[in-house]
Amino acid sequence: MDKPYVAGVDIGGQTTKIGIVDRRGDIVAQTVITSKYGEDEGEKFMDSVCDTIKSLASNVGMDQIQGVGIGAPNGNYYTGCIAFAPNLPWAHHHSVPVKAYMEKQLGVPVTLTNDANAAAVGEMTYGAARGMKNFIMITLGTGVGSGIIVNGELVYGHDGFAGELGHTCAVRNNGRQCACGKQGCLEAYASAIGVARTAREWLGSDKYEDSVLNDVQEITSKDVYEAAVKGDKLALDVFAFTGKMLGRQFADFVAFSAPEAIVVFGGLARAGEFIFNPIKESMEANLLPIWKGKVAVIPSALKESDAAILGASALAW
Amino acid sequence: MDKPYVAGVDIGGQTTKIGIVDRRGDIVAQTVITSKYGEDEGEKFMDSVCDTIKSLASNVGMDQIQGVGIGAPNGNYYTGCIAFAPNLPWAHHHSVPVKAYMEKQLGVPVTLTNDANAAAVGEMTYGAARGMKNFIMITLGTGVGSGIIVNGELVYGHDGFAGELGHTCAVRNNGRQCACGKQGCLEAYASAIGVARTAREWLGSDKYEDSVLNDVQEITSKDVYEAAVKGDKLALDVFAFTGKMLGRQFADFVAFSAPEAIVVFGGLARAGEFIFNPIKESMEANLLPIWKGKVAVIPSALKESDAAILGASALAW
Repeated sequence: MDKPYVAGVDIGGQTTKIGIVDRRGDIVAQTVITSKYGEDEGEKFMDSVCDTIKSLASNVGMDQIQGVGIGAPNGNYYTGCIAFAPNLPWAHHHSVPVKAYMEKQLGVPVTLTNDANAAAVGEMTYGAARGMKNFIMITLGTGVGSGIIVNGELVYGHDGFAGELGHTCAVRNNGRQCACGKQGCLEAYASAIGVARTAREWLGSDKYEDSVLNDVQEITSKDVYEAAVKGDKLALDVFAFTGKMLGRQFADFVAFSAPEAIVVFGGLARAGEFIFNPIKESMEANLLPIWKGKVAVIPSALKESDAAILGASALAW
Repeated sequence: MDKPYVAGVDIGGQTTKIGIVDRRGDIVAQTVITSKYGEDEGEKFMDSVCDTIKSLASNVGMDQIQGVGIGAPNGNYYTGCIAFAPNLPWAHHHSVPVKAYMEKQLGVPVTLTNDANAAAVGEMTYGAARGMKNFIMITLGTGVGSGIIVNGELVYGHDGFAGELGHTCAVRNNGRQCACGKQGCLEAYASAIGVARTAREWLGSDKYEDSVLNDVQEITSKDVYEAAVKGDKLALDVFAFTGKMLGRQFADFVAFSAPEAIVVFGGLARAGEFIFNPIKESMEANLLPIWKGKVAVIPSALKESDAAILGASALAW
């Protein structure tokens, strides 16, 4: 018989969030541990994750845990390994068999995928995409990630790495350098770093000499949001530009998988209408007639603080 | 028990090809009828298709036919209807319930989808994509069509219209007007019409004053191919440009569904290395590092004359 709980593990560059979740999406126990282990300390890290799960599960009993879901940068569903993850020293230069190791330690099934895929499954299980069979999740954070659901299933592709929509081309000629090595990627414009960069690039212009952002050292996307709330022209224009870049790219994504909705998650999504209005306008202008007015662009319905654990946990059902 | 034959029906703007196909992909009987019926003659057309199937099947017996697969412009898998098909007067201004009508007439299951999706299933069943679970089919004809296979299944999306990759954006600023109403679509550059247009646009230039295409009235993509075979500089440059437009777009498609291969079908694919070399070069230059050297771009393995019937028939298994 199915057991009533799962564990969700969200591995980030700095910290790893771990929680025990019930079928309704309530987190009954949770904690945070460090992800910072050295190059040869992969097993030490995984032992720490397993010990934490056992400890969190002790109230309900480890025998009530159906399985463990893990979202991680470069987590591969097919191989069950994390590999080539630049922000995780223990999984940067070699491939770490997270699934196999933890299944042996815990005695329950472990499912691994990347963080944006986990977010998509979380949204489908507990969030804004409940009941949807075809949607695309876009995560706007330090980078731009994506998880694609087709016919109720995550798209993994031939090698498990499908859904890198942040690295589709937004600007063909003289596009910005992206961290991936390519130029003009969507991520270089629509990530938190991209937004801050747009603001910094435009600050020199006479048009924006009154901007409150002139007084800010090392502008972040949060500064841009706060300035937009105050009606700052530069900040509003930055969101309009970012939304335009996202929206026209979304139109191409729709031409691919004809989703019912695109769900937007992450820090930038909190900018609300400042970013959603230009996204929608630009997407509509670039859609084929058959899709105009028919594809929703909606914010995630998961509380940001819980979303990572919920997303990861949803993989385990 | 499964029956040994299926019927394949490929509905085109001018003619409709109909064949009886066995499990190995051999066409045991085939013929061509006209698609040209007036605005209110949809039933007349469908009656003609049904009569032709019965007649072709008479040798093996209609009771040996497992089902009928139909590929048609704007054929919708979910609704079983053809609607808004500008090249089919009888299905332009209203929606024609092809599946329901023909199932009633023939007493066997009928599966309808668009022609590029049918081509993808044909390639997976009998052609270059046998054994593949994740690939993308690109059809280069009058337009640019696509069929996307994820995990062994066609991607239909929320509304049945997924896979319109010919209408993703190839050129953002001042792109060519596309027949769909948008600007800069891949189809406006990489269709047969797009190729001919590129050649005509470039003919004025001094650089190409020696081109053999200067002597051709109303250049077609076939003229460009024939000139390329003769080593004509203009024609070769046109294919290099067309291949570049396709290849960089293919890189974005890979970022979506991480296919094992992209299979290219249609008139332009016959241009062989003239088109495949620039496609591959441009795709590789635009791929994320994880995919470089790992995604094949291959020509269809179906004989062009048989492909339409085979593709449609494969839907019926």
